[in-house]
Amino acid sequence: MQYVIGIDIGGTNLVVGSVARDGSALVAEMSEPTQAESGAADVIDRLVALTRRVIEATRREDPAAEFLGIGVGAPGPLDTKSGIVLLTPNLGWVNLPLRQLLHDRLGLPAALDNDANCAVLGEWWRGAARGTRNAIGVTIGTGIGGGLILEGKLYHGASDCAGEIGHATIDPEGRRCKCGNYGCLEAYASGPNIALRAVEELQAGAESRLPEYVGGDLSRVTAQTVYTAAAAGDVLAGDVVAETARYLGAGVANLVNIFNPEVVAVVGGVTLAGDLLFTPLRREVARRAFKPAVAVCRILPGELIGTAGVYGAARVFLDQQGIA
Amino acid sequence: MQYVIGIDIGGTNLVVGSVARDGSALVAEMSEPTQAESGAADVIDRLVALTRRVIEATRREDPAAEFLGIGVGAPGPLDTKSGIVLLTPNLGWVNLPLRQLLHDRLGLPAALDNDANCAVLGEWWRGAARGTRNAIGVTIGTGIGGGLILEGKLYHGASDCAGEIGHATIDPEGRRCKCGNYGCLEAYASGPNIALRAVEELQAGAESRLPEYVGGDLSRVTAQTVYTAAAAGDVLAGDVVAETARYLGAGVANLVNIFNPEVVAVVGGVTLAGDLLFTPLRREVARRAFKPAVAVCRILPGELIGTAGVYGAARVFLDQQGIA
Repeated sequence: MQYVIGIDIGGTNLVVGSVARDGSALVAEMSEPTQAESGAADVIDRLVALTRRVIEATRREDPAAEFLGIGVGAPGPLDTKSGIVLLTPNLGWVNLPLRQLLHDRLGLPAALDNDANCAVLGEWWRGAARGTRNAIGVTIGTGIGGGLILEGKLYHGASDCAGEIGHATIDPEGRRCKCGNYGCLEAYASGPNIALRAVEELQAGAESRLPEYVGGDLSRVTAQTVYTAAAAGDVLAGDVVAETARYLGAGVANLVNIFNPEVVAVVGGVTLAGDLLFTPLRREVARRAFKPAVAVCRILPGELIGTAGVYGAARVFLDQQGIA
Repeated sequence: MQYVIGIDIGGTNLVVGSVARDGSALVAEMSEPTQAESGAADVIDRLVALTRRVIEATRREDPAAEFLGIGVGAPGPLDTKSGIVLLTPNLGWVNLPLRQLLHDRLGLPAALDNDANCAVLGEWWRGAARGTRNAIGVTIGTGIGGGLILEGKLYHGASDCAGEIGHATIDPEGRRCKCGNYGCLEAYASGPNIALRAVEELQAGAESRLPEYVGGDLSRVTAQTVYTAAAAGDVLAGDVVAETARYLGAGVANLVNIFNPEVVAVVGGVTLAGDLLFTPLRREVARRAFKPAVAVCRILPGELIGTAGVYGAARVFLDQQGIA
């Protein structure tokens, strides 16, 4: 069978796997901690070694395996045409010619795109948004990003910056965002900001069992702690999740009005909140967006938990080579 | 020469002209009041008569004139595939098969798209956004609409509803919009809302010479009155224009972050405010949006005053026929 190596470079983990050319299988998926603090050269060395192990493991499963190339998703901003990562604050990389490096070290042609685009492309190819022509993905983790599949293709914009939907203003006088602006969606609904909003309420004296989940150490509250407590019936945590749904709803309603998509896929850890999040989110979007656009749009959690980026990176390679 | 008839159906005026196939000329442009209250049948009769006069006048100028077809821009929502106007509150039309009607009455093939899309496509083809691959148009009049030119093509979305950027939420708890939502961009920066914000300030006791421009009758204050007074140095009117720039800036910054376009063209009467509006608008976008996206994006007033919709409608015909 023919395969494309998919590589997902995250701030926390490196994930690599062999994706069947038609997307029907993901073989020999492996991951290890990124450990960005060890420096770009060391991360690349370990990534190359991990990829070689994936290739060997794939050949053990399928002795006739043939590798067409490598697709890589990395944090941006980056230049898809030259294959250069321009700047990744989380990894400390500046102007790194990642595509060429991987090509030289592994002897296979490579293609590069940003991590959010890859995750959304993966969900479109093989996950929640499959079968659509127009789908928008919202990736929620440390930050909020997005990917735009328009007329069956990933849309990049004039200089590979499109899809920065986390920094849409939802309240011009609102919370300060780490981008320097005020009232960005990310300042309310990213993982760390979901946790922070809960902690702020606790510090203001709200009653809650949340502290019990973190041994009383509020610095350990994460978005996932909030979802867990909300699912167990904690009122404060439930309020924070419902409020998150309202903020996300304002952002997603804008996307529905602007793109009139068939699917908005919400990708990332936030999907762990399940119906506690998605039910009020869908209600808020229906309340805010245009009825004819709402009528044709499904709002869905991502399906490829942890592997959307690997599938999508492989697809980026196929698309850039014109063989998808 | 080969021509396409461009028709722009507005709530106020019908505008018709012959557009050279290559967009190099607009011949025999004519207009008359829409008078929607006379009913759909009468409006269509007069539109057909006006179009026949345009055809005759074009033939007088160019006896070898050949007419390829008709492009029509009309208020939506509408279905571009079937050529049916579904509902136009301003005109009182419901499920009107406009494309077929014009084809039958005028004996030429026709194509239909919405008025905002046509205006933006016109600016992209022959106006402020010419020569770009990715351009966003914001149309500001009675409402705020938009058109999206992505990878050199008008983007419609799943059901012809894309581009509703006037109803992007810029303040979740903000001004009530006539769409039923709160804090929509349109609730602040449409022509009538620009006038209304000025009138509200006057009624609250603000000092201004604005009443002198309307003989003391505040119901006659329009957005244009506000621009005129601002240009003459009226402080209140200047504040309203500057505030409009800030609201528009939040909306346009979102579009810059989402689309990473080469041009955002602002189309409609609001361009009369000139630098009083565009200078603070550009500053606000630069303050709010991502630097790499801001760096490649020009924010420009439309150039085809009053004729963008006619040019764009003609281009819609060429695109739908695949002969552009």
